[in-house]
Amino acid sequence: MPAVSVCLSPLLANIHDFTGKIAVVVDVLRATTTIITAFEYGVKSILPVDSIEVCRDFQLQGYIGAAEREGKKVKGFELGNSPFDYFNPCCAGKKIVFTTTNGTRTISTIKKADRIIFGAFVNLDVVAGFLNSLKKNIVIVCAGWEGEVNLEDTLFAGTLISKLRSSFLREGDAAVLAYNLYKQSGEDLLGFLEESTHVNRLKKLGLQKDINFCLELNKYEIIPELIDGEIIPVENIRNAII
Amino acid sequence: MPAVSVCLSPLLANIHDFTGKIAVVVDVLRATTTIITAFEYGVKSILPVDSIEVCRDFQLQGYIGAAEREGKKVKGFELGNSPFDYFNPCCAGKKIVFTTTNGTRTISTIKKADRIIFGAFVNLDVVAGFLNSLKKNIVIVCAGWEGEVNLEDTLFAGTLISKLRSSFLREGDAAVLAYNLYKQSGEDLLGFLEESTHVNRLKKLGLQKDINFCLELNKYEIIPELIDGEIIPVENIRNAII
Repeated sequence: MPAVSVCLSPLLANIHDFTGKIAVVVDVLRATTTIITAFEYGVKSILPVDSIEVCRDFQLQGYIGAAEREGKKVKGFELGNSPFDYFNPCCAGKKIVFTTTNGTRTISTIKKADRIIFGAFVNLDVVAGFLNSLKKNIVIVCAGWEGEVNLEDTLFAGTLISKLRSSFLREGDAAVLAYNLYKQSGEDLLGFLEESTHVNRLKKLGLQKDINFCLELNKYEIIPELIDGEIIPVENIRNAII
Repeated sequence: MPAVSVCLSPLLANIHDFTGKIAVVVDVLRATTTIITAFEYGVKSILPVDSIEVCRDFQLQGYIGAAEREGKKVKGFELGNSPFDYFNPCCAGKKIVFTTTNGTRTISTIKKADRIIFGAFVNLDVVAGFLNSLKKNIVIVCAGWEGEVNLEDTLFAGTLISKLRSSFLREGDAAVLAYNLYKQSGEDLLGFLEESTHVNRLKKLGLQKDINFCLELNKYEIIPELIDGEIIPVENIRNAII
């Protein structure tokens, strides 16, 4: 019987064994939502990197540079971490190099996973369908905020668990915690996340529009996947979901 | 306004600033419950140590040795990590050296705190009363299980938050998460914790009696405190609670 577990923070990744498993990376506000959106708007590939410096190096090699720290676009880069930055025909067909406060740093901790895919509320149902088809062990990896557990990624983890077939075993207390949070949330995600520190951080930055966007369900049928260090969309998703 | 935050695992302790704060260490199943019980039965002091080896050294110096790993008493020690081990007149007035899988290891990560006290369901109300009197910033530190977040310590954190006066601000998403879990739990703690991995681990070891004991509310009016590396009970608790 396949199992689903939840890693609530990148700092807890070392206690999970990713070998042979599907890792679902989630950073609802906003990295994974933005990555999914970028592919909807025709981006060719996204190279996640840890540091601003490395991001700049690739930018000089011809990549379009996207960089965010503390919720803001970093000076000298074309794009930030808002999905709205990618509603832009200039990105279509292009390679992007991408660094964010939390999302991209998470990736380096989970390299042993069999496949690494990216989830958010905007692609919830296709991710659930894909996982239900694969029937493999899953770890949902929440990006959190600077190592701290966060509410919106935990809620996403619980919501995704609720969409898995009952043949999936919930493994570990973090999965139970996330699923319990989902059961409390109801349909008004924004109201439920009112106390989230990151929602409030983004509100203060005037990014209410981004928050609303990131909490919309099933806007896109795209699943980004990390292959050989670069993120590209899984092809023919409808065929991959039985 | 004083704030309360929650550290869901010792592995997340480094992202909290403990300076000037009250740390409440919790390992409901079973270290902190056992420590509280030991003082009820007249133990003089408890020396928490990280390793079996150091525990043995102090045992040779005349301390009563208590050691647990993976839920079981370690061979060669007088006591384990069951509160029932301390229903024993031979412990009264004695110094104990104590090592457990999770609880004692947690302590070394939070030394900067102003005061370090120990909480569990068995002393819930006196801990809450004490914190309400002190009116200082609080971090509730959950011991978890081998670094992983656990359900019972998170539930205790949420329950303790519910007992704090409304003048305490909930700081950080982990506090919100814990408080939400509490709101879901209802009065049947054991039923609610049915999915807890550690409850099931202890059940398999035949320790249902210990689980029931650890989930009883307000059996004791004792608050253990770490002072100069050794745990002793706070004196005159009723005077300390205004």
